[in-house]
Amino acid sequence: MLSKKVLKDIQSLSLKKNRSESGLFVAEGPKVVAELLQNVPDSVEAVYATEAFGISHEKIQIISAEDLQRISFLKTPNEVLALVRQFSSEPPPGNAFILYLDTVQDPGNFGTIVRTADWFGIEHIVCSTGCADLYNPKVVQSTMASISRVNVFYDKGDNWLQVQKGPVYAGVLEGTNLYDLEKTSHGILLIGNESKGIRPQFLSRATTPVTIPRRGGAESLNAAVATGVLLSHLLR
Amino acid sequence: MLSKKVLKDIQSLSLKKNRSESGLFVAEGPKVVAELLQNVPDSVEAVYATEAFGISHEKIQIISAEDLQRISFLKTPNEVLALVRQFSSEPPPGNAFILYLDTVQDPGNFGTIVRTADWFGIEHIVCSTGCADLYNPKVVQSTMASISRVNVFYDKGDNWLQVQKGPVYAGVLEGTNLYDLEKTSHGILLIGNESKGIRPQFLSRATTPVTIPRRGGAESLNAAVATGVLLSHLLR
Repeated sequence: MLSKKVLKDIQSLSLKKNRSESGLFVAEGPKVVAELLQNVPDSVEAVYATEAFGISHEKIQIISAEDLQRISFLKTPNEVLALVRQFSSEPPPGNAFILYLDTVQDPGNFGTIVRTADWFGIEHIVCSTGCADLYNPKVVQSTMASISRVNVFYDKGDNWLQVQKGPVYAGVLEGTNLYDLEKTSHGILLIGNESKGIRPQFLSRATTPVTIPRRGGAESLNAAVATGVLLSHLLR
Repeated sequence: MLSKKVLKDIQSLSLKKNRSESGLFVAEGPKVVAELLQNVPDSVEAVYATEAFGISHEKIQIISAEDLQRISFLKTPNEVLALVRQFSSEPPPGNAFILYLDTVQDPGNFGTIVRTADWFGIEHIVCSTGCADLYNPKVVQSTMASISRVNVFYDKGDNWLQVQKGPVYAGVLEGTNLYDLEKTSHGILLIGNESKGIRPQFLSRATTPVTIPRRGGAESLNAAVATGVLLSHLLR
């Protein structure tokens, strides 16, 4: 049986303010939690799992399905919930390929972009003001444990990009045809808010505005899909 | 003021059974509804909008924000809700590039795949049993009006693929390197369920299992992102 204090502490983490104060976040589901326990065991503070989870680890406390229902942020809880310590983040080094996100607000898109970046070997993401919070439960869910591998740095003054050198690609609707670009191993790829695109202050820094040629009728691509297509071709 | 009957009829469309019986579905939000009114006006049965929607059309009935809240399937209703007649669908012709989805269940992924296909000019998608319903409100939302342009055919006996000729590409974790493939203009691309992949009965039909090379630590890509990356490279 979970204590009222544990229940209250976990529920409080639905708010960013409480996540920042405690330095903790919630991760759910067997795949994500198993991967976090394996990759970053020291960051995992506590794990609450039903018998179904089937992994044994000193940090795991077995609870009932009813208790999991009580603490879960999901409509359909999935075997296990972990309390995890937030990762440290820092400005990325100058010699890497870096993703810059301008006001990507949708948690699912944001998390999927972190996961996609991780697939393509991007180790650093810089986020403008207005981006979703990395530790929002829906973001965490969508990253599928990539959250533990990618350095996500919040550019609180929106001025990081101003001082960067080297190529800056920007995903836009009217730019150079993506398929005409040579492959690259360093530079910055700028992705904008799905309905408003990239803000002018950032777009003016782009050396190569780039477009994924459209053949059909859709007005735009989903931001995570566009990020995947651009990274795939630039880093192929 | 909306009648109780209208309210009840709209609410009933959250269930697939009622959508199939009535032949109707619900679309929400100003972008999607404006596009449907423009592209397929004859399919739009009724539109309920607040003053904020700002488009005038004989099918639009202005309602209060409270009434919109009552009929909306969204947590945060967005100006307008339309009742739309379902589109006819048929088996695709043999000379097109076709996307085959095996048990893609997540509504957001499914809808984003329809939108992505539309961007790349794919006009036909065939769905196995177990795929999400095209007219599920979350699917409709994610398609961003591409639902009116792409022919989505449900392969109810799971036997459509058995009789196809020509190249069948299949997105898998261990296959030919995507970047080694020539571009193409016809064939079938097979996308599987995100956690279980492609079922053996379908995978055995693949002439070219294909892999997006992984450079980082993520275990897999989101199904919609993978679809975009594969289509982008194959049809470039």
